[in-house]
Amino acid sequence: MADALKIGIAGLGTVGASLVRILQDRREMLATTCGRAIEITAVTARDRSKDRGVDLSNATWFEDAVSLAANADIDVFIELMGGSGDPAYAAVKTALGRGIHVVTANKALLAAHGIELAAIAENKGALLNYEAAVAGGIPVIKALRESMTGNTISRVYGIMNGTCNYILTKMEKEGLSFEACLKEAQRLGYAEADPAFDIEGNDTAHKLSILTSLAFGTAIAADDIYLEGITNISIDDINAAADLGYRIKLLGVAQRTESGIEQRVHPTMVPYDSVIAQVDGVTNAVAIESDILGELLMVGPGAGGNATASAVLGDVADIAKSRPGAQHVPAFGRPTNALLPYKRAQIQSHEGGYFIRLKVVDRTGVFASIASRMAENGISLESIMQHSKHPKESDEPQTIILVTHATAEHSVRDAIVAIKSEGYLVGEPQVIRIERPKAA
Amino acid sequence: MADALKIGIAGLGTVGASLVRILQDRREMLATTCGRAIEITAVTARDRSKDRGVDLSNATWFEDAVSLAANADIDVFIELMGGSGDPAYAAVKTALGRGIHVVTANKALLAAHGIELAAIAENKGALLNYEAAVAGGIPVIKALRESMTGNTISRVYGIMNGTCNYILTKMEKEGLSFEACLKEAQRLGYAEADPAFDIEGNDTAHKLSILTSLAFGTAIAADDIYLEGITNISIDDINAAADLGYRIKLLGVAQRTESGIEQRVHPTMVPYDSVIAQVDGVTNAVAIESDILGELLMVGPGAGGNATASAVLGDVADIAKSRPGAQHVPAFGRPTNALLPYKRAQIQSHEGGYFIRLKVVDRTGVFASIASRMAENGISLESIMQHSKHPKESDEPQTIILVTHATAEHSVRDAIVAIKSEGYLVGEPQVIRIERPKAA
Repeated sequence: MADALKIGIAGLGTVGASLVRILQDRREMLATTCGRAIEITAVTARDRSKDRGVDLSNATWFEDAVSLAANADIDVFIELMGGSGDPAYAAVKTALGRGIHVVTANKALLAAHGIELAAIAENKGALLNYEAAVAGGIPVIKALRESMTGNTISRVYGIMNGTCNYILTKMEKEGLSFEACLKEAQRLGYAEADPAFDIEGNDTAHKLSILTSLAFGTAIAADDIYLEGITNISIDDINAAADLGYRIKLLGVAQRTESGIEQRVHPTMVPYDSVIAQVDGVTNAVAIESDILGELLMVGPGAGGNATASAVLGDVADIAKSRPGAQHVPAFGRPTNALLPYKRAQIQSHEGGYFIRLKVVDRTGVFASIASRMAENGISLESIMQHSKHPKESDEPQTIILVTHATAEHSVRDAIVAIKSEGYLVGEPQVIRIERPKAA
Repeated sequence: MADALKIGIAGLGTVGASLVRILQDRREMLATTCGRAIEITAVTARDRSKDRGVDLSNATWFEDAVSLAANADIDVFIELMGGSGDPAYAAVKTALGRGIHVVTANKALLAAHGIELAAIAENKGALLNYEAAVAGGIPVIKALRESMTGNTISRVYGIMNGTCNYILTKMEKEGLSFEACLKEAQRLGYAEADPAFDIEGNDTAHKLSILTSLAFGTAIAADDIYLEGITNISIDDINAAADLGYRIKLLGVAQRTESGIEQRVHPTMVPYDSVIAQVDGVTNAVAIESDILGELLMVGPGAGGNATASAVLGDVADIAKSRPGAQHVPAFGRPTNALLPYKRAQIQSHEGGYFIRLKVVDRTGVFASIASRMAENGISLESIMQHSKHPKESDEPQTIILVTHATAEHSVRDAIVAIKSEGYLVGEPQVIRIERPKAA
């Protein structure tokens, strides 16, 4: 059997502690599978004295991640600290600079510095593995980076934030408000005390930017993402969606278009009988559409100590099974010098179906006026519904719901500006994009 | 850049021709991704003169697969002939014996000889890759063999035969008979002229046996599978399932139990709101339940020239990215000498819910008798329904539908024997097992 693989772990939070426990409990099983033992020889964490229920007496403790990365006698540096800046950034750079393989679960770091880190890894013949950074236990990085080699990807999209999916699912199933469901998510530990990063879509955007690079062979462009969170989704939207045969999910979508690559994160209506519509609660799902393989959808746990540790372990095992310097696996699918330039397609040029919910004063001619403004902007309607509660004009505003056929976003925006100028709108219109899976 | 990877292809049917086309059309893209070119240097096929729309003038033609495997100057032998016996078997053995990596899409070959071939591969330091052999384009082999390293798997199950899923979906959506849908599947090329291998479950069983070995680290036991096809499923079953909130799918299921490993292929009722229930038509799906990662479900195309060629290409790319002799990847997850003995759990000891549909003569006391026979066998009922069309006894038989809570198969069988002996049954009872995903 080959020499043991020596690993150093920086960060012993939920994921780190899970990983240590698994490596210790399954030592023999892993050695059999990998053809060599995996030994934790170095660790660092904020609090050394904390009882994590794991035995680390054989590992050398380092004061900080950078000194571990710089000095430890290790084959693999495992970064589980999080955050796009130092110490994670400096530590990963230091390890790769020594030619040490890196495994990380840090989406923020990759979104900000992924390509720079990939270039260092390539130069030094080191691997940069990050399965755990996107959609937790779902092996989407491996699917894109390895299984789908040779495929041209047209679209990748998914439910990549468990907090949002939990809230949207709970709103639908129990008829509760966004605020009530957010509170429940916080109580259960699915949402942070400050939930903005999840519910505004930033977390999904980080993950999406990594998938975009892998899918399209472009540089990472985490700041070029159209972003809309779920805070404006009301139970009325969810009920109206259900009536029309849709469910609302927060999707991250990256799509190849004629004008460039669209990256967008927003609440999305998906057909009720599509597979992804059935993905409930904190579960994640990622779909990849390509020209050779076709559509692949993967569903699984997107977070949690064990699921994330499983993904980290898979990355470590890949290194254990290979032999030092034996593989050519560019971190983002192609060598960094062969990455394509990223050209952003603006959201205004997005083409798709739209759900539009308007509150209007109850006045004769409003319905006709709305239909006219849509027609003038070349928007073809799949359906238009008015739930009029009163036979005659009343003081209560009426709700009108439109569903469009595929149309350009700028047309929808222009039509809404025109409708607004008519003076019969009450409050802001609600606009939700519709996304249709290619296959069922 | 490293030397080109030289490959030999045996079999130029739908998959082989797709693969050649892709390798030629995407030569540069593949070289960029893999760090070396992929060259087809040897080929063999039954009919050399057939026009396949691909240029093979640079490849050496061999008379047969064995002589190609024995003599060609290649790094990888790609077997796309099919069949568990020669020439595929002899050719793969020959290639591996020379230390040449093998990529195959041949489930029948692996089900019959997988472990023997894996042992040769190990001895010679060659890789045996077979992503395309199970569920076409879905990267389930990679998920089990690589991503889930360290996980203990409790159950793996899936829809692995597109023909059956197409037929069952069509029966449900259009209210047609099994026979009518089979004919339509044949017309569309989804079913063979002799469909027995698909509709009796044998194809699913081959694939399941491979997943079982990977999931549980045991030797392949393709003959130790409980087998029931879909030929007895009627539109009445499908409608009754729908009324109860289920859909019927042909599943292959491998499950770890106290008495051993259950391998079974049979029509199965799955809850309508589970993700796998929404997998329609020829699409495949595989779910893996494990202790660390949790539940992973993958959905995608299970057949077709391009999807299968994509999986083959992924396997080839993995070899191209590695360097000769550089990897330790036991074909079935662990070295063949470390595989665990396979112990079969008999279907009689299977525990689960059951759907039972009985036709009985319309006579007072029958309902009570059935309930009693179930109770005597310790079977607890979730529901029991009688659709009586007549207020009084009539000459028409009545249908009674039972759904049990989790119970042992032998209890169900005993109860049915007891019911049969009462003399009021008309025809054979229909029994369909219920399978519940662990997560939604």
